[in-house]
Amino acid sequence: MPRYRITIEYDGTPFVGWQIQDNGPSVQARLAEALEAFCGVRVTPKGAGRTDAGVHALGQVAHFDLAKDWPANTVRDALNAHLRPDPVAVLACEVVGEDFDARFSAIKREYLYRICDRRTPLALDRNRVWLAPKTLDTDNMHQAAQALVGEHDFTTFRAVQCQANSPVKKLDALRVSRVGEEVHISARAPSFLHNQIRSIAGTLKQVGEGKWRVRDVAEALKAKDRSACAAVAPPHGLYLLKVDY
Amino acid sequence: MPRYRITIEYDGTPFVGWQIQDNGPSVQARLAEALEAFCGVRVTPKGAGRTDAGVHALGQVAHFDLAKDWPANTVRDALNAHLRPDPVAVLACEVVGEDFDARFSAIKREYLYRICDRRTPLALDRNRVWLAPKTLDTDNMHQAAQALVGEHDFTTFRAVQCQANSPVKKLDALRVSRVGEEVHISARAPSFLHNQIRSIAGTLKQVGEGKWRVRDVAEALKAKDRSACAAVAPPHGLYLLKVDY
Repeated sequence: MPRYRITIEYDGTPFVGWQIQDNGPSVQARLAEALEAFCGVRVTPKGAGRTDAGVHALGQVAHFDLAKDWPANTVRDALNAHLRPDPVAVLACEVVGEDFDARFSAIKREYLYRICDRRTPLALDRNRVWLAPKTLDTDNMHQAAQALVGEHDFTTFRAVQCQANSPVKKLDALRVSRVGEEVHISARAPSFLHNQIRSIAGTLKQVGEGKWRVRDVAEALKAKDRSACAAVAPPHGLYLLKVDY
Repeated sequence: MPRYRITIEYDGTPFVGWQIQDNGPSVQARLAEALEAFCGVRVTPKGAGRTDAGVHALGQVAHFDLAKDWPANTVRDALNAHLRPDPVAVLACEVVGEDFDARFSAIKREYLYRICDRRTPLALDRNRVWLAPKTLDTDNMHQAAQALVGEHDFTTFRAVQCQANSPVKKLDALRVSRVGEEVHISARAPSFLHNQIRSIAGTLKQVGEGKWRVRDVAEALKAKDRSACAAVAPPHGLYLLKVDY
């Protein structure tokens, strides 16, 4: 049974998230349906990371096994044909060894959180960017973010329903920069806790608005207390950019 | 009666175009409805340029007169409130002199045409970018485009239903460049003919794919014959960026 690795782009807006759930359409279910339409057998792809409802991906990775030895580009094109008209696209497909696991073989994950700090509504980037009506101080946000880089107990920045065994994670990089009319928060780590980036983005926005001081972020981290976190940022500003193996 | 000038962003996807028409919702009609909801009187804004169905705007400009002397920011915020949930946003509003006319006072218009030249479908930028499955040669496209800069008879690149008195227009700049995974065609002119940029974009794509030679574009211009134009590019890659006064 050859194993295939696919790289996937999706608009998270119409989905309940990556993972198959009873309460609505998921990206994983749509891919499983497309695989079944292609090869006649139910095959459920396993993803590198679960993204929540509304969260987008430019480079989610998944793997699955097929009974027959199809050329990788045939699988890619067939999946794209069967995924229509849903906003899910298979960008690349390759045959990998049977020891490859999209989740457990991943060594780094990169996410981007986009905020547009303008007063007026978004017409074109609605559901793509978090709208923040006050101008954000990105220098202060970046400075505050540096307290979170490294290995820490991220209990403050972790959803109560997070299923990870430990709240300790190593954050390799967390950068805040201005890109035109937007503020971009880039995060890279071997893995993340549930809602970790959205919790951090919501907190850094408070710093950007001047409601929190730079040092308050370090204090919140030290508190190891979920109630020390600011309001979690909405899902539609978040993008899973890339998974490294 | 104070005159107001507004700058507008919109997603062209759900509209029949800028202009009020019998066959569906237009941006102009939505703005007129929002103005009526705000001030109780029917006021129809006049735009700098008509955009076709599916064409987007980041900086369309329009003007209208109100009976009462409202602060400009009040007008902006009221319009945005009444435009919800449609993808139209008033980015700016200012009081201007009664001699200002969004269409006739304009001295330059800038448009952007976006093409993504990749084989796989677009999940996130569907209805925002023209998908071209073959890699485009942007150097050749740019070189071919230079034959169109300057004052010319653009009969070849003009819709048959174009209502302009003359097919002669002056194109100030036409640039083709690669921006990440996309090819951007930027055009600047005092004014454009109907479908001029989409006709040019469709033709330059043929050059990018190697189906047309660079010099074929100059030949097509010289022909002054609509049938010498390549297939017109679809509306959803086109953006009205800016109008100068």
